[in-house]
Amino acid sequence: MTYSVDTQALVRRYLHTVNSGTAADVAALYAEDATVADPVGSGEVHIGRRAIEGFYSGLAAAEVNTELLTFRDGGHEAAFMFEITVGDKFRVQPIEVMTFDRDGLITSMKAYWTPADVIS
Amino acid sequence: MTYSVDTQALVRRYLHTVNSGTAADVAALYAEDATVADPVGSGEVHIGRRAIEGFYSGLAAAEVNTELLTFRDGGHEAAFMFEITVGDKFRVQPIEVMTFDRDGLITSMKAYWTPADVIS
Repeated sequence: MTYSVDTQALVRRYLHTVNSGTAADVAALYAEDATVADPVGSGEVHIGRRAIEGFYSGLAAAEVNTELLTFRDGGHEAAFMFEITVGDKFRVQPIEVMTFDRDGLITSMKAYWTPADVIS
Repeated sequence: MTYSVDTQALVRRYLHTVNSGTAADVAALYAEDATVADPVGSGEVHIGRRAIEGFYSGLAAAEVNTELLTFRDGGHEAAFMFEITVGDKFRVQPIEVMTFDRDGLITSMKAYWTPADVIS
């Protein structure tokens, strides 16, 4: 655990790619065996880059905008709050936690939000 | 994983106890084998209720105030941002992630903040 990564730059790259990239582009930011829980508590975890690409493909048809609101570094991890707007009817500010490997690939992502947090 | 806990009430109880309780009071909110990483990335993890009480005893001599800023539920987990003020010179807004057992005891706490986040 002696490696160093710029977690804030990696989080900004992730949000930018969610904004403007394809599902494959986003999946490529993840390690091959990464896991995604979004939202945490749903009982569903996407395991592996292929499943993760499938998860993000749900956003592909819509206009997506993201904005980083608060960032907290944790070494090889980071926690942050951001706003995501999908189309003109879905807006939410999740808290996410990401872990990163020495290559800067995301090894896990957990998104904390519920339908009650959606801003109408 | 079929149990249900009111994570927001548990987080509010935790912050209230940090405000007004002793280190032993705070430690009693944790499961016997719980873990605390605060801040994440420091390389130090406090394991077990006795070590956790030792960690919180560092706050015992000071005036401590906490305020919950943002809360996100995750079933048996929760992520939240709060402000903590210690004495008159230390103020920071960490993002924390907690997991809970079926009795509502905290099984893990991870606090994301760095010295660069301290508000002067």
